Amino acid sequence: MLPLILIIVGGLCAVAYGIVTISDVMKRDAGTQRMQEIAGAIAEGAQAYLKRQYLTIGIVGVVLFAALAAFLGIKVAVGFLIGAVLSGAAGFIGMNVSVRANVRTAQAASTSLGGGLEVAFKSGAVTGMLVAGLALLGVALYYLYLTRGAGLDPSSREVIDALVALGFGASLISIFARLGGGIFTKGADVGGDLVGKVEAGIPEDDPRNPATIADNVGDNVGDCAGMAADLFETYAVTVVATMVLAAIFFSGPTGSGREALEPMMLYPLAIGAACIITSIIGTFAVKLGANQSIMGALYKGLIAAGVLSIGAIAAVNFALFGSFSRTFTTSTGVTFSSAGLLGCAVIGLAITALIVVITEYYTGTNFRPVKSIADASVTGHGTNVIQGLAISLESTALPAIVIVAGIIATYALAGLFGIAIAVTAMLALAGFIVALDAFGPVTDNAGGIAEMAGLPKDVRRSTDALDAVGNTTKAVTKGYAIGSAGLGALVLFAAYTSDLNYFTANATDTQYRFFKGVTVDFSLSNPYVVVGLLLGGLIPYLFGGIAMTAVGRAAAAVVEEVRRQFREKPGIMEGRDRPDYGRAVDMLTRAAIKEMIVPSLLPVLSPIVLFFVIQAIAGKSQAFATVGAMLLGVIITGLYVAISMTSGGGAWDNAKKFIEDGHHGGKGSEAHKAAVTGDTVGDPYKDTAGPAVNPAIKITNIIALLLLAVLAHA
Amino acid sequence: MLPLILIIVGGLCAVAYGIVTISDVMKRDAGTQRMQEIAGAIAEGAQAYLKRQYLTIGIVGVVLFAALAAFLGIKVAVGFLIGAVLSGAAGFIGMNVSVRANVRTAQAASTSLGGGLEVAFKSGAVTGMLVAGLALLGVALYYLYLTRGAGLDPSSREVIDALVALGFGASLISIFARLGGGIFTKGADVGGDLVGKVEAGIPEDDPRNPATIADNVGDNVGDCAGMAADLFETYAVTVVATMVLAAIFFSGPTGSGREALEPMMLYPLAIGAACIITSIIGTFAVKLGANQSIMGALYKGLIAAGVLSIGAIAAVNFALFGSFSRTFTTSTGVTFSSAGLLGCAVIGLAITALIVVITEYYTGTNFRPVKSIADASVTGHGTNVIQGLAISLESTALPAIVIVAGIIATYALAGLFGIAIAVTAMLALAGFIVALDAFGPVTDNAGGIAEMAGLPKDVRRSTDALDAVGNTTKAVTKGYAIGSAGLGALVLFAAYTSDLNYFTANATDTQYRFFKGVTVDFSLSNPYVVVGLLLGGLIPYLFGGIAMTAVGRAAAAVVEEVRRQFREKPGIMEGRDRPDYGRAVDMLTRAAIKEMIVPSLLPVLSPIVLFFVIQAIAGKSQAFATVGAMLLGVIITGLYVAISMTSGGGAWDNAKKFIEDGHHGGKGSEAHKAAVTGDTVGDPYKDTAGPAVNPAIKITNIIALLLLAVLAHA
Repeated sequence: MLPLILIIVGGLCAVAYGIVTISDVMKRDAGTQRMQEIAGAIAEGAQAYLKRQYLTIGIVGVVLFAALAAFLGIKVAVGFLIGAVLSGAAGFIGMNVSVRANVRTAQAASTSLGGGLEVAFKSGAVTGMLVAGLALLGVALYYLYLTRGAGLDPSSREVIDALVALGFGASLISIFARLGGGIFTKGADVGGDLVGKVEAGIPEDDPRNPATIADNVGDNVGDCAGMAADLFETYAVTVVATMVLAAIFFSGPTGSGREALEPMMLYPLAIGAACIITSIIGTFAVKLGANQSIMGALYKGLIAAGVLSIGAIAAVNFALFGSFSRTFTTSTGVTFSSAGLLGCAVIGLAITALIVVITEYYTGTNFRPVKSIADASVTGHGTNVIQGLAISLESTALPAIVIVAGIIATYALAGLFGIAIAVTAMLALAGFIVALDAFGPVTDNAGGIAEMAGLPKDVRRSTDALDAVGNTTKAVTKGYAIGSAGLGALVLFAAYTSDLNYFTANATDTQYRFFKGVTVDFSLSNPYVVVGLLLGGLIPYLFGGIAMTAVGRAAAAVVEEVRRQFREKPGIMEGRDRPDYGRAVDMLTRAAIKEMIVPSLLPVLSPIVLFFVIQAIAGKSQAFATVGAMLLGVIITGLYVAISMTSGGGAWDNAKKFIEDGHHGGKGSEAHKAAVTGDTVGDPYKDTAGPAVNPAIKITNIIALLLLAVLAHA
Repeated sequence: MLPLILIIVGGLCAVAYGIVTISDVMKRDAGTQRMQEIAGAIAEGAQAYLKRQYLTIGIVGVVLFAALAAFLGIKVAVGFLIGAVLSGAAGFIGMNVSVRANVRTAQAASTSLGGGLEVAFKSGAVTGMLVAGLALLGVALYYLYLTRGAGLDPSSREVIDALVALGFGASLISIFARLGGGIFTKGADVGGDLVGKVEAGIPEDDPRNPATIADNVGDNVGDCAGMAADLFETYAVTVVATMVLAAIFFSGPTGSGREALEPMMLYPLAIGAACIITSIIGTFAVKLGANQSIMGALYKGLIAAGVLSIGAIAAVNFALFGSFSRTFTTSTGVTFSSAGLLGCAVIGLAITALIVVITEYYTGTNFRPVKSIADASVTGHGTNVIQGLAISLESTALPAIVIVAGIIATYALAGLFGIAIAVTAMLALAGFIVALDAFGPVTDNAGGIAEMAGLPKDVRRSTDALDAVGNTTKAVTKGYAIGSAGLGALVLFAAYTSDLNYFTANATDTQYRFFKGVTVDFSLSNPYVVVGLLLGGLIPYLFGGIAMTAVGRAAAAVVEEVRRQFREKPGIMEGRDRPDYGRAVDMLTRAAIKEMIVPSLLPVLSPIVLFFVIQAIAGKSQAFATVGAMLLGVIITGLYVAISMTSGGGAWDNAKKFIEDGHHGGKGSEAHKAAVTGDTVGDPYKDTAGPAVNPAIKITNIIALLLLAVLAHA
């Protein structure tokens, strides 16, 4: 009981940090009336977005809640509700802090760069800590209730199903928030530019353009709320899947069995709790040094959090397992030591570090990839895009090799469970990493506010410096998000196969009847496995294609709405009338949510439809094999599609920035025009299609797990 | 013996068709002296390219020949030589016809559209028939020698290894021709435009630009020689892999055994021979109807060839197996009938038809995809590229579903062997399909020659109409090439697993010693399988990225060379001096071949390096599993990467043509400029990186098969 209480205390620390930091941020000076007016418009837009989004998700959620309650019982349905509500809460609170911190960052930056950095980073840290804290608390408290309150066996199907449903709740929010947010933000961005700059001839960030506020809202919607939901989901489903693996590996008559069950199920939660503490400490290490390097300041915090985490996880091992030399044997016959698990956790942290470094290489302005795109811009739009695509393809190689090396090393140390622990450790730093990401939209907004409010040039210089770093941290976090999602999905896949083994091994006439006589051949020489791999591989492609098209249509809807407002309220252009920001945002929200329905359904329905189609053609066993292979197929292409899109998009963005810094003729040159084209192409790549592939991968996997649970009840 | 002789007669028919048609084409009027001068320059450039390319391949080939002779014996080395020489010959002769037919097409088009079509299509058909005929003859004659001349058992390892080596020889030419040709042609295209149009201010296709001829040479190098080598390879390796499967399935003590062995090994060859005859008949059905529809005329031929092929394959079944109801059982226990095999062949033909239709939908100017890109061009460069990328991602879905349906249906009919027969039938039409593709560069060149020679406007209108259709047929053929390569690679993968089973089952202290104690777990729950899938999946991405970058560098080299010629011979610009086309082409050839070394080595070395690395880490069994999974991984992402690139590129190209036809403001409008950007981006996508993924997929698979053979000898 004590470890579980300590874990909950860890989660509460994150929430406490959030509350204290929110009140600290809110106390800061919110600047001039003009600044507050602009920030107010952004906040108004954010409210309009959230209202509509949660209304839609709520409708879907109620239906799913009822379905889960009917098919799998009330405990499963409540698990789903917890996951959805907490993920929504993390995004909701985080975004609300973000839209208030932006103006305070702009104001603080007018005094000093360090001041601006502090406010922006702190507000990002609120979102980060809430993501990690609420995810941990949700799983830990519900586990506490199920095993202590309801008195269920920790390895029972009811506990496992309820936890998986909690992950599914998080997935639901994630796919909506990522995809809807991505379509919203890039629809506003592209559409606003088309109608404002091209048609009306007013500058970017001009408050007369009703879509400009939507653009600023979009930054928060995508990179703050969207990323928060994404990582909440990855965190929750990875912890849950690791617990499911522990339940399967340590509940059987063979292996270390019962004795190891509870510590192993708590281990991922304890790692999460320990790393929340180290992440909080890490936030205090973020201080601008004498060299005024913003990135350096952020890295100081990340390195502190990472290094401390090694010690903290070692302490967790000692506390839970008694020593480092204690060995365990799973029911599948794999033996590993406590030290081996610690090794896996350290490898997880190392993967995080390497992915951060690699992504910075591919998207930072100091290195070959971005410079090569900038160079190619000199010869025109076409060569810019060609080089950007080349870099986007190339950028997948090193992350893939790091992930593969991690799989090999952790599997050697502790089998499948070792891989799961590595991902858990990787995600345990989510609090800090999300802080880095949520920092981005705040500084981006701060820059916009400074521009619109006409603050002095040197303020703008400070916010620009913050904004440039924000671009890099956004890209870095996306690399981390997809890397961890890919590895997390592998753990989910392991849970699928282990679950399937469990059901088929224990199928009788009274229990798991559906699985009687099922023998699944997951071998690559089974053509149905190839079919599953190919169809799984298709999902990220089709999903990405639809998402990119959706951005185009949402942008067209923005153009229509802005034209209408200009036509009906001629005073807007003369500054006499205030544009209806809320209506533009609400319209875009509706467009975004309408556009995301088909792509969201794709990963949700694919495994279900595939299962029943193949069952009809070739029977249950092949249907299970095909769906299992689909889960891996979606990881394989999904990893490459997502990395190439997010890194490529980041590189295009910073190639433009590099030119704007005075290279190749600077702003207004032909090279700059070409770089703007590349940046526009990169926008939906890196902010819509690419990041939305993460939840698509995970939701496919979690739906398959739920499908098993439903069939087991049938 | 009789069936084998008839098969060889079929192959000889293709060669005879080639010889007769060459002399027919060469007899046509070659036009004015100016036209012949330009065509002469293109032919000169083609010679320079081929000289350098074959020199380089020759050096690599000699080394590989010696290595194969040393490791696997002289019969294997000779097989390799046959594959390489015949593939090279098909490309060499085809390209030489092509560069002579271009001027005759331009001349014939000045009389009538039908005349131009006839010359262009006939010269394309020469290449097509040589590809199918020489590939069939190579395999059939060497099989005849090995089993009759050398008296080897048809199912012996020596025969199998020698045939696999023949496929490897074809692969070697293919990867060089595809990648080198692709870099050459797009380097000339992009580089020539940069230095000619932008710097020197001379129009496109101006004979004063030394790179313009290289551009025309490039069309032939890429789409004629490159595609010929690609499909020669797919044809050869698929037939060989199907024969290997037959040898394994019908040589054991179980199943139908010996009695079925020879007919089953000859079946793929017989299908090839029968379809050569139907393809030749099909070429005579290509006649311009009253509606003057060029595409319609070509489709008439394709439909005739396809429908006749069903009857011809049915006749083959009857001749080889005696009846349609005869059943066979493989050594792995799969039972199927002669009619079932016929069904698989028909499914293969149906897949071909569907892929042609789908590709035309995605790349034709009459349909939504291309129109959507044209629409998006109105709002700028960025939106054009975004929509093009969206279409390129989306375009993978239907072909993938068709391929998956084909796998399921043929597997149900006749197991793995059924899949192999479907691909064989698909490829049996290669003669006609390559004719469609090789038609493209001829009409493209004819248009250029008409322009440069200042022929009357209506001639240009005829060649333009032919050229537009050429764009579609090139895209359609690429869709077919990647679809068949993907399915062919699945057959190769089946050969890999079957071979591996064979070696491990028969390993003793004196034979296949390396495989003693090897038990390979190809299950998806083996993490090394996941590692292999991920690393295999990386190959097309990294390969594509490097290829795209290589085009950029080759283009820069062209710029340098053209600048040098302008500087050293000032008379060129005034028309007094003739530019040194040969030197520009030779320089570009060297640049292209230098650029292709690293990407070519990637798929060649990857399976070998991976095998030994994993062997060192986790032992032989896991090394075999990882390499096997890599073979599938490269198919899964390769299929999507290649289809998205070739279809997307074709769509961009035709979106530009659609605008040039007078939509959205036509030539010179802002929309047109945006469409030109999309076309430039699509160029290396569809002509370099995308098509080169095909040989990369196949060579990875064939190297793995050879690795098994080498290890079996160790």
